[in-house]
Amino acid sequence: MRIYDIINKKKRGEALTTEEINFAVAGFTQGEIPDYQISALLMAICLRSMNAAETTALTMAMVASGETVALSPLGATTVDKHSTGGVGDKTTLAVVPIVAACGVPIAKMSGRGLGYTGGTIDKLEAIPGFRTAIPPTEFMQIVKTHGLCIVGQSANLAPADKKLYALRDVTATVDSIPLIAASIMSKKIAAGASAILLDVKTGSGAFMKTPEDARALARTMVEIGKGCGRKTAALITDMSTPLGNTIGNSLELQEVTNFLKGEKTEKNLSDLCIALAENMLILAGKPASKSSALDMVKEAISTGRALQKLKEMIKAQGGDPNYAPPIAPHVATVTAPKSGYLTQTDTESIGISVMLLGAGRERPEDKIDYLAGIVLKINPYDYVKEGQPIAELHTSNEKIIPEATEKFLSSLTLSSEAIPPSPLIYEKIE
Amino acid sequence: MRIYDIINKKKRGEALTTEEINFAVAGFTQGEIPDYQISALLMAICLRSMNAAETTALTMAMVASGETVALSPLGATTVDKHSTGGVGDKTTLAVVPIVAACGVPIAKMSGRGLGYTGGTIDKLEAIPGFRTAIPPTEFMQIVKTHGLCIVGQSANLAPADKKLYALRDVTATVDSIPLIAASIMSKKIAAGASAILLDVKTGSGAFMKTPEDARALARTMVEIGKGCGRKTAALITDMSTPLGNTIGNSLELQEVTNFLKGEKTEKNLSDLCIALAENMLILAGKPASKSSALDMVKEAISTGRALQKLKEMIKAQGGDPNYAPPIAPHVATVTAPKSGYLTQTDTESIGISVMLLGAGRERPEDKIDYLAGIVLKINPYDYVKEGQPIAELHTSNEKIIPEATEKFLSSLTLSSEAIPPSPLIYEKIE
Repeated sequence: MRIYDIINKKKRGEALTTEEINFAVAGFTQGEIPDYQISALLMAICLRSMNAAETTALTMAMVASGETVALSPLGATTVDKHSTGGVGDKTTLAVVPIVAACGVPIAKMSGRGLGYTGGTIDKLEAIPGFRTAIPPTEFMQIVKTHGLCIVGQSANLAPADKKLYALRDVTATVDSIPLIAASIMSKKIAAGASAILLDVKTGSGAFMKTPEDARALARTMVEIGKGCGRKTAALITDMSTPLGNTIGNSLELQEVTNFLKGEKTEKNLSDLCIALAENMLILAGKPASKSSALDMVKEAISTGRALQKLKEMIKAQGGDPNYAPPIAPHVATVTAPKSGYLTQTDTESIGISVMLLGAGRERPEDKIDYLAGIVLKINPYDYVKEGQPIAELHTSNEKIIPEATEKFLSSLTLSSEAIPPSPLIYEKIE
Repeated sequence: MRIYDIINKKKRGEALTTEEINFAVAGFTQGEIPDYQISALLMAICLRSMNAAETTALTMAMVASGETVALSPLGATTVDKHSTGGVGDKTTLAVVPIVAACGVPIAKMSGRGLGYTGGTIDKLEAIPGFRTAIPPTEFMQIVKTHGLCIVGQSANLAPADKKLYALRDVTATVDSIPLIAASIMSKKIAAGASAILLDVKTGSGAFMKTPEDARALARTMVEIGKGCGRKTAALITDMSTPLGNTIGNSLELQEVTNFLKGEKTEKNLSDLCIALAENMLILAGKPASKSSALDMVKEAISTGRALQKLKEMIKAQGGDPNYAPPIAPHVATVTAPKSGYLTQTDTESIGISVMLLGAGRERPEDKIDYLAGIVLKINPYDYVKEGQPIAELHTSNEKIIPEATEKFLSSLTLSSEAIPPSPLIYEKIE
């Protein structure tokens, strides 16, 4: 087998065999196939695409390049979720305790944020002492004892994906649905859960700007999951506005705690958390019917059992379960520059404003200001009056406030006519 | 300007600017842009193509990467020819002396053969003492004195093409018409002639198997030539059978000498040599009309002036002008295995048979057996009888004869019904 022939075959638009894909991925990972041949192959894949069998084979080849986590000691069914990332997306922090409270163990590996989307690990690290680097044996022991644990993603999962991504990043071969899907799924498959729920975002704050693209990515990922023998489903959800009323690590942690306490929560956040938890339980085969899944989720919240699970996890991972984050040193109120309906939000610009305040990273080595962020004082589609407070900017860096304010205001469109809201959940793909 | 954006633009199918193409070619040649980015760009070009302006810009960027030959001291008009290569193609050896005999100076750089197509330089080196590595000053002096000189191609012409070709060769990005056309034309433009005639072959022995592909390549090359300010035209010619009755270096040299002596020559060879010489004269603006160009060519041959020019050149370049090659140590006659019309020739297989006999190279470092080759005893489309001698195999390596015979016979199709011959010249593109 020669890599030349494999490149040539994909260039002509033909489907590669599993053996050919394994040969290319293993050869590249082991340094036997040079990067200039793989970058040509990646470009051919971008322009000629891959079918479901090829994409599944690519995923499995990347899984095979590294360690895999065996979750079978936790029982027959374990469940995982993945979000393609969005502004204010703190659903993992709420959903993991809810699902655990319903009796489905959840041993979760999460990522750090880069750019304007914060990662779950960053939000948890806002709690002093919280440990996200936990050795495998202790990780499993915490899940066995408490039913949940969230740690940082091991660097040993799917190293081929890491090496391929670095090459894609410099050769303009990132935006290919088969390559994106295989990259995400390789880490989820290696992480070991028998069921996987995908939250694929669409809208101004998402990587997939249109519902069509989001659907295509979701379908491909669901096909891969099933092809790898995992129960897999996806929700296509809205990211045309931030989720909830807070963006920023400590602020989001507090918002989740309040939600699990039963306090009033922005509807898009509470509805999405409930839908995700419900669908994870269904995938895990826990409830007898769909309606009972929803009941289980609501009961886990209303009885305080989900909040209790979150506190158990925080304690087991070295944090103070009753930690309440302080307010940032500088808080600036932003008022509406004119009256009107909030018809459009450039969610990506809000994300950049939050990053300016110190809550995100431009480069992987940047330090995070855990207290920084934005508290929204109005809801999407609301009518606001000129001068009305619409947001609070929280930061440790007073000097950045004017620039962050300008960026934040530039993200809002105030119109004289109201528009109907986007659906929160477009579709379920399974 | 960033190479990432250039790759991404071509991936989306947009046209690159001259500045972008210059940036990529110069950066790669100077080692500032890594090969893994250029191979991704090459694959994007293969699949998205390039328009005429881009292809011309690419050619000029490759010309600018190295030396160029100034032929102006030879007068306002100089002419060059290029053949895309074929089995038994010895036309350059005949055409250069004919054109020079008609008063148009020709300072020609030619390539060596690789694979089954022999190069003009190899054929000339079959003459003991013949020098093909001649310093620029002497090269120009020989052309000034005698009107013709054929040397090996300088390694300093279009080094970017050499570097890009090496990368294309290992990344399955060779077969792109814009890339092939720019590669050929960069060396022709750098070689300095003001007029260029292209002989683009089609058929079983050619790189372009169909007339459509040959036309597309010819059109692109003619556009490039004109875009670079050179008079350029192309003939699309047949390579479904070998040219002439001999294949092999010494044998082909002798066949050309015989043709210029006025001896009977296989019609496809003599007709093509005359057509090429005629069109070179027309491009060079030498004759007053097309009919007088043809007359000039015929007269140059019939008066022996073309033969005289060939001998002058051989002498000036260190060879014996009256050298007659010996016969190879082993000559085997091949007879027809059955009766029938010779309806089809797999010219590529004949080329491989000749290579087996020792006349070609598999690797650039292989040594050539100048006496090796095949003499065809029948013409294409002839009726042959079982047992009739159809070819002589010449070699210094007796052991290879059975394998070469088998390969040669496998190339011929003998049928009960005759078929009409392919046209020799399909079309002229200008």
